[in-house]
Amino acid sequence: MKEFCDLSDLRAGEIEDLLELASELERNPQVQALQGKVLALLFLNPSLRTLTSFQASMTRLGGGTFVVSPEMSIHGLETRSGIVMDGTAAEHIREAVPVIASYADVIGIRALASRENLETDLSDSAFTELRSLCDIPLINLESAIRHPCQALADWKTLNDLGIPAKGGKLVFSWVYHPEALPLAVPADTLYMAAKRGMDVTLLRPDEFAMPELLINRARTAAQQGGGRITETSDRDEGMESADVLYAGSWAATQNYGNRIADQKARNNHENWCVDETWFRPAKKSCRFMHCLPVRRGVEVEDDILDGLRNLVVTQARNRMWAQMAILKKLLAD
Amino acid sequence: MKEFCDLSDLRAGEIEDLLELASELERNPQVQALQGKVLALLFLNPSLRTLTSFQASMTRLGGGTFVVSPEMSIHGLETRSGIVMDGTAAEHIREAVPVIASYADVIGIRALASRENLETDLSDSAFTELRSLCDIPLINLESAIRHPCQALADWKTLNDLGIPAKGGKLVFSWVYHPEALPLAVPADTLYMAAKRGMDVTLLRPDEFAMPELLINRARTAAQQGGGRITETSDRDEGMESADVLYAGSWAATQNYGNRIADQKARNNHENWCVDETWFRPAKKSCRFMHCLPVRRGVEVEDDILDGLRNLVVTQARNRMWAQMAILKKLLAD
Amino acid sequence: MKEFCDLSDLRAGEIEDLLELASELERNPQVQALQGKVLALLFLNPSLRTLTSFQASMTRLGGGTFVVSPEMSIHGLETRSGIVMDGTAAEHIREAVPVIASYADVIGIRALASRENLETDLSDSAFTELRSLCDIPLINLESAIRHPCQALADWKTLNDLGIPAKGGKLVFSWVYHPEALPLAVPADTLYMAAKRGMDVTLLRPDEFAMPELLINRARTAAQQGGGRITETSDRDEGMESADVLYAGSWAATQNYGNRIADQKARNNHENWCVDETWFRPAKKSCRFMHCLPVRRGVEVEDDILDGLRNLVVTQARNRMWAQMAILKKLLAD
Repeated sequence: MKEFCDLSDLRAGEIEDLLELASELERNPQVQALQGKVLALLFLNPSLRTLTSFQASMTRLGGGTFVVSPEMSIHGLETRSGIVMDGTAAEHIREAVPVIASYADVIGIRALASRENLETDLSDSAFTELRSLCDIPLINLESAIRHPCQALADWKTLNDLGIPAKGGKLVFSWVYHPEALPLAVPADTLYMAAKRGMDVTLLRPDEFAMPELLINRARTAAQQGGGRITETSDRDEGMESADVLYAGSWAATQNYGNRIADQKARNNHENWCVDETWFRPAKKSCRFMHCLPVRRGVEVEDDILDGLRNLVVTQARNRMWAQMAILKKLLAD
Repeated sequence: MKEFCDLSDLRAGEIEDLLELASELERNPQVQALQGKVLALLFLNPSLRTLTSFQASMTRLGGGTFVVSPEMSIHGLETRSGIVMDGTAAEHIREAVPVIASYADVIGIRALASRENLETDLSDSAFTELRSLCDIPLINLESAIRHPCQALADWKTLNDLGIPAKGGKLVFSWVYHPEALPLAVPADTLYMAAKRGMDVTLLRPDEFAMPELLINRARTAAQQGGGRITETSDRDEGMESADVLYAGSWAATQNYGNRIADQKARNNHENWCVDETWFRPAKKSCRFMHCLPVRRGVEVEDDILDGLRNLVVTQARNRMWAQMAILKKLLAD
Repeated sequence: MKEFCDLSDLRAGEIEDLLELASELERNPQVQALQGKVLALLFLNPSLRTLTSFQASMTRLGGGTFVVSPEMSIHGLETRSGIVMDGTAAEHIREAVPVIASYADVIGIRALASRENLETDLSDSAFTELRSLCDIPLINLESAIRHPCQALADWKTLNDLGIPAKGGKLVFSWVYHPEALPLAVPADTLYMAAKRGMDVTLLRPDEFAMPELLINRARTAAQQGGGRITETSDRDEGMESADVLYAGSWAATQNYGNRIADQKARNNHENWCVDETWFRPAKKSCRFMHCLPVRRGVEVEDDILDGLRNLVVTQARNRMWAQMAILKKLLAD
């Protein structure tokens, strides 16, 4: 494994191997496995879980981490090519990124969707450009349309909880959120569950249909994995016999980048806030997942987060074990 | 030891054992004792000494640290229960704290006094709520009325300097400071010295009497330890035969939370700034202590801080050794 | 070696020994050499390369780092002596620096030129004062007129590339930059190349002559090392047969601290932006160096930075190996 940027670079069997290593590291600490090794974390957008879980991951394996983040904003980084840098930005990513990479054995980069132009975001161009500047193993810490560390951790959570791959049903539902959030987590969760072979339903208001490119990517994975993808705006139909409800929010893609149109579309659906009634058509044991951060009382009611269905802390904790497996695979092999 | 949140959870003998371990770690490095172990530091209020001394402590024991602090303020953390999170805060402590704890082997939390309502602060409710969200060993990095790491380090400093426990006299004096500071350090210093069996004098202007609850807590410790607590506003009487003068400042508790009334009360006492004349009635060898940060020329004159009485750097350095003992006790046993 | 503050504290042979150790650490990792050791990094001015390269350096040697930086600005640090601290600053460097040092085995301090008064900056007084407060090994992370870590790394880069010491020609050229930058890098690069025994040319517009003190320091080193220093404002003459062009920018020293006069002086020389034509009189193999950050299209054209002459990433990477040698020498011997 040379990089971990896109879950589709790995076959399902390779992912299962990686998760076996994650569980092995969870059971048996390997505190010297990456002694003296350095992980660079470059955050073009801020982070809590990704930052701290990677710091903990490296410590547990005996290595260390350094962070470059926008709050440090020492000089401001210029990203445009061929520009005369006579403004405030005093450094170009073409120097900064190779230098940062030169201090590390592995680098993680976060570059979220700009949420201005749909085609740009779907092309994942910002991340792709940064990737081209690195000549060491690279981890995608969330790009415009991918969050493979989250997807890998969620796959582990589904395994750990014994939620069946073949025949298990995962519903990914859009929920209300005051902001137009990126497509990365919903798209990669669909893809992950499809690749795992699950029966996947995308539940969302009609205005929040997902771009064809992302749906098709998941559909191809479903065909290979023996699962299927269904879309619906009907909650009862969608939740029928579900094993897991995974909630998230994203921008309306019809008027992508248009804040007012997006706000208008989402304001019709303030009642898409998960509560116990959602689970009526589901299996009795149906669990609740969310990648966090989550807004209580807006995306989901308190009693779900404080109750037995809730898996969000387990999901977050699995980020650490999954990432330790990625790091070990990239560095120690 | 399951947590280190309150010095009163430990008997005096247990504290002496902990300090013996601290001195042992000071003499003989144990650079692999906590290999692969992770300390999470959650600062709801900023910090210099506590942050850096804990980072150094973990490095010296072979482990690592990650920090979550208000400057990171990625989403803003909501602390209120049962709230509809439609404002700026995008994450609730009920998710954030368990997740942060899930990445670590031990967590330290700082949640200072709000200094708005005395009863709320005396109940230490903010810290207590955060504590209820953690299921791993917890260290109090300063709460509304406690700063046990500082108190433990100061106990070590008193031991190291040979300042007698039984019969030794410690004066804690209020000094002028432009702000209404928290009660945690003065209250815990009184408690610590009383528990150590010392003859303790609280020297302060009448408007700055300490709440009964905190005085009584120290008095009980004094009774058990063989020491005693005296309060006075008479400097010469208070300083009579003192072995140590510990200076600090705190809010007037009569009009707690009322900035104007507090300012009025403290402005009468700008002359409470420690200088050499304070030491006339004291023992010749009387030393000066302060938890830092200290305002030169306001709380204490330069010649004291630059002279032989001064112990403040020793105190600060002992934070590290004391905390290493706490960490080792919590994690390696 | 007790500290690494000034390249002139070391003889050329000692520098070569240090660089041999650097190359040894580059080839053969020593992941336990500084286990349990702590480096404190105190930045009075921000940093990207210095911060991250030192963090990586300590990790690679098995130790750890903590950072105190202006962004943390917890209380604001007072630096003036004998002041009554009744303003916003709540802590004095006379307490803060010894405390920070007390947690560490080695401390690095950055205190850049104020660029207000030339004599003050040439005396390096800010750094010298901080140095007097530390009783552990100290590393200069860039002071008003010195950047010895950069100079040491650059010496290594020249060695690695096989650029001859005796007889090799290094041109340090002023280039246009919108801001009045410090003298530290140009002055220490001149000194380093002279000490290495090179034929050194300082190429700059007449208004940007370097202070006598700094030129003479380099000249003395040249005399001892067998090299020489030449100054010119004629580009073709200066670049004649050059092996290396090192570009940088600095403030006009005639009206030092006078922003308007400085701006006027530099605005006449916006055409001092390195492009391929500069290299015509040079050796065919002539390389390009810069300490970074660099403004593309302002200090140097894209095709140089994207072409084969460019050494800037190599230089930055050598910071790490050089600093590892310094740390090992200061701590492990």
